[in-house]
Amino acid sequence: MRQNKFSSLDTPSVIVDLDVAKANIERFQTYCDQHGMKLRPHIKTHKLPGLAHYQIEKGAIGITCQKVSEAEAMISDGGISDVLITYNILGEAKTKRLRALADRVMVRVVADNSDVVKGLSLAFADASRSLPILVECNTGANRCGVASPALARDLAIEIDDLPGLSFAGLMTYPPVGAAAHVHDWLRNAKALIEGSGLSVHIISSGGSPDMWKAHEMPLATEYRIGTYVYNDRSLVMRGTCGWEDCALTVLATVVSVPSANHAVIDAGSKVLTSDLLGLDGHGHVLGRDDLKIDQLSEEHGRIWCEGAINLAVGDRLRIVPNHACVVANMLDHVELVQGNTVLASTPVAARGQVW
Amino acid sequence: MRQNKFSSLDTPSVIVDLDVAKANIERFQTYCDQHGMKLRPHIKTHKLPGLAHYQIEKGAIGITCQKVSEAEAMISDGGISDVLITYNILGEAKTKRLRALADRVMVRVVADNSDVVKGLSLAFADASRSLPILVECNTGANRCGVASPALARDLAIEIDDLPGLSFAGLMTYPPVGAAAHVHDWLRNAKALIEGSGLSVHIISSGGSPDMWKAHEMPLATEYRIGTYVYNDRSLVMRGTCGWEDCALTVLATVVSVPSANHAVIDAGSKVLTSDLLGLDGHGHVLGRDDLKIDQLSEEHGRIWCEGAINLAVGDRLRIVPNHACVVANMLDHVELVQGNTVLASTPVAARGQVW
Repeated sequence: MRQNKFSSLDTPSVIVDLDVAKANIERFQTYCDQHGMKLRPHIKTHKLPGLAHYQIEKGAIGITCQKVSEAEAMISDGGISDVLITYNILGEAKTKRLRALADRVMVRVVADNSDVVKGLSLAFADASRSLPILVECNTGANRCGVASPALARDLAIEIDDLPGLSFAGLMTYPPVGAAAHVHDWLRNAKALIEGSGLSVHIISSGGSPDMWKAHEMPLATEYRIGTYVYNDRSLVMRGTCGWEDCALTVLATVVSVPSANHAVIDAGSKVLTSDLLGLDGHGHVLGRDDLKIDQLSEEHGRIWCEGAINLAVGDRLRIVPNHACVVANMLDHVELVQGNTVLASTPVAARGQVW
Repeated sequence: MRQNKFSSLDTPSVIVDLDVAKANIERFQTYCDQHGMKLRPHIKTHKLPGLAHYQIEKGAIGITCQKVSEAEAMISDGGISDVLITYNILGEAKTKRLRALADRVMVRVVADNSDVVKGLSLAFADASRSLPILVECNTGANRCGVASPALARDLAIEIDDLPGLSFAGLMTYPPVGAAAHVHDWLRNAKALIEGSGLSVHIISSGGSPDMWKAHEMPLATEYRIGTYVYNDRSLVMRGTCGWEDCALTVLATVVSVPSANHAVIDAGSKVLTSDLLGLDGHGHVLGRDDLKIDQLSEEHGRIWCEGAINLAVGDRLRIVPNHACVVANMLDHVELVQGNTVLASTPVAARGQVW
């Protein structure tokens, strides 16, 4: 039974099995090596310098961060010298911090509009090394990104003309399952930009859902991926991995069994979060396919079962959350384990970093 | 225009207007005073000792917390001497901390099952002052709580028989809009318990959605309420308050306007959270009823508009989130303001406290 596992840990806790995480890192690195792909993992999932170091030790060319403040947290203890920030960085407070970061490590950023690149140019105009910028391309995810290959070319030219900046390539956050379309889009943009006399050194694509198809777009020179280090219920449901590959789980205790079909655990939205990612329910209870976490409030998770719930107050459950990245952002610490051995509690260095 | 507001603040930030929060506290305290109701606000919304002190200064009889660790954070700087923890507290790690807390301030807790009260009894058997326990009653919300008035009586008797404990009353987290049913349930339980020779000193009800109907259940001796201090989009949509009563907003910057109908802000689920509370979209942009925040990823909020979006990169927006309590839990600090004046950045003392 599960209730005796990790008796030294209080609940709710976010548990990371280092053996599983390292195996996930090694497996995808091997895949990248076999296909001659460069890997630049996104640290937004683990937010732990230790795991970033392991990713680089195994062959990653550097890391990806979403915000300047995340990058600051990740490089603070040394050992990481190459960072891509895949975000429009705007405003003097942030561009100054970016400039300070660029004085310490190799930093590239992305941009999808003229206002952002002008602000970056102001901050880097007198820098000894120009800031390399990738143009973010909207290849169908409809988040950020220039709308067409022609606009990508125009922004590339503007970047390269501005003081302190250099055009470095293209970046996209691709829609899932659309590799052929993404490939055509980027090929067209690359041709237009090269036609204007600029070189496209880097083409950065990414995403965990399509991770095992990454080699189907050889145009990409780098692949960004985050969730693969922990995996989660959303990726298991897509068939990307199995439950045994899920390195991050939430340890929770049953605090009430008010009826024969219903129990309450001490993990609510403050740990599991409300992210659904299109799924029904708020996580998977390992070993209990018959249970559904059907409702969360901040500190309560409600579990229903069509049959007898067969849980007692005090039982401990391990839950694979819908979305690992957001769960890793909720608590100040995660508990590192190897199998059934508890190793250490470690601060989530880049937690809550949104600037 | 909004873009020049709070120019000293970086984005995304969580902003709390102290004037609005204090007016909310005063308005509901006045209502309670007029109806002879005792108010015990839940600090899960603000998590700030300063606002808890203001609530008590204005007439609250104490505070409500959901977890022992929240209570520890709230009493750490003194000034709060009466705490109700509305949660089944289970496991030696937590009952020991509770015992230490009870040595410093008046603490009451709730319980809905025998395992929990036995654990509490072990921790308090040799205490100089017994631990008062309220029986949590399921009056229809189907979260925690004993299932019937007879079970409430049985647990009350068990509590009062156990060393170190005393039975103090009843507590419920009532379903919205069901005051008559809740009243009948609690009246029956009270009669049964009094019939067994015990006194029901406290009956604790609560909830922000029905806050202006709290006086319709005179059986309750205390009212718990959290969200009213900040209010949020969910309460505006219910008609409980207006936009001008929303003290907590998220300040965000437009970082991309990729099309005529679509923009992206730098606040995603790491600030706004994915809590929907039954609503469509992820918050309300103040002053722009025509905008919909239709999609969040961790650091991006996507805004769509049926007409021309009329936003530029660099514009700043203030957003009333769907659910204020969970937003207050996301960042280490909130920015205190009064109208257009920025006062201070203050740590969210009880943020992330789930034990």
